[in-house]
Amino acid sequence: MKFYDCKTAPSPRRVRIFIHEKGVEIPVEEVDLRQKKQFDTEFIRKNPRCTVPVLELDDGEFITDTLAICSYLECRFPEPPLMGGDPVQRARVLMWYMRIVDDGFMAVAESFRNFVKGFRNKALTGQIGYPQIPDLVDRGRKRTAQFFADMDQHLANTEFVVDDVFTLADIAALVAVDFATAIKTEISDEQRNLKRWHASVSARPSAKL
Amino acid sequence: MKFYDCKTAPSPRRVRIFIHEKGVEIPVEEVDLRQKKQFDTEFIRKNPRCTVPVLELDDGEFITDTLAICSYLECRFPEPPLMGGDPVQRARVLMWYMRIVDDGFMAVAESFRNFVKGFRNKALTGQIGYPQIPDLVDRGRKRTAQFFADMDQHLANTEFVVDDVFTLADIAALVAVDFATAIKTEISDEQRNLKRWHASVSARPSAKL
Repeated sequence: MKFYDCKTAPSPRRVRIFIHEKGVEIPVEEVDLRQKKQFDTEFIRKNPRCTVPVLELDDGEFITDTLAICSYLECRFPEPPLMGGDPVQRARVLMWYMRIVDDGFMAVAESFRNFVKGFRNKALTGQIGYPQIPDLVDRGRKRTAQFFADMDQHLANTEFVVDDVFTLADIAALVAVDFATAIKTEISDEQRNLKRWHASVSARPSAKL
Repeated sequence: MKFYDCKTAPSPRRVRIFIHEKGVEIPVEEVDLRQKKQFDTEFIRKNPRCTVPVLELDDGEFITDTLAICSYLECRFPEPPLMGGDPVQRARVLMWYMRIVDDGFMAVAESFRNFVKGFRNKALTGQIGYPQIPDLVDRGRKRTAQFFADMDQHLANTEFVVDDVFTLADIAALVAVDFATAIKTEISDEQRNLKRWHASVSARPSAKL
């Protein structure tokens, strides 16, 4: 296997943390997004959507989505389980993963990519150039603030995002919250539950990645 | 269990088809989105995101995301498998599901919800009102056209979206393509692969739902 990563990008960080939590070693190839290496012909052949993370399997097949990669790694390396220990917990992890990506990660990305000059004609990932839409800068910021408030409320009653166990849902939430610093959104002092949870998951060795 | 559905809405249609393909019967409660029943206090208690589908489990827990619901049903009713027969195929199904939802379904929704008058201050689902952004009408339409072209190319070499087996990826693609009629996007005569696949999956009894 080979993991196509970009150390400065938030999306592949989810897989980086997931692999570290599994305690396995997978060879890494760096794809420098700042040098636009994702648009090289050779990389487009691997992933026409021009994104990382990508996981190359032993037979040369490419898996090009975070959730699909984590699901595969969960089957290959079941311990410790990071996607739920039984069908109900697995459903909870998926539900929270989807919610965190949609309401959190994509909200930050919406604000960030429509604001930063380097994305002027690349407001969405992929080969097609879509121009920035200024109204999305503010909408993304508002949605991110709402996401922080929702997570603070949710974490009042649970140690981790799902039950009392660290899962992919925590990984997704950590990456979304940390990504939000790019749009100058941080956890407020009043958001005590979110702050407590963030300090706890950030203390894990995998979070340094 | 109980399945909260809305017969006129595309999102819960994925679960409707999934349940029919499993050959199981699950009691249904209709949530009339046109009557804004998703904003009733009682429904918000079930799903604060104000969306269907929702699956109520036997112990009263609510699962509120299509993928999470399908994952749970796949565990409860393994036959026929609709999410992949082995770890690699499962990864493929998830990868295509995510891609189809992001590039297809959400592209249609982006154009539709920013255009239709009824969504004037509800351009996104959920309790918070976000105003429409006119630029997204055209962007969503362009992305949808690109999605159709990409799917046509992909389906040149495969009977179904993943390998030679009908899966959740086909369900997601069928619902996205049919939803696109709401923004007047249809399969062109030149898109022969997509047309062949669409005729095939539309002929299944589950597609009538």
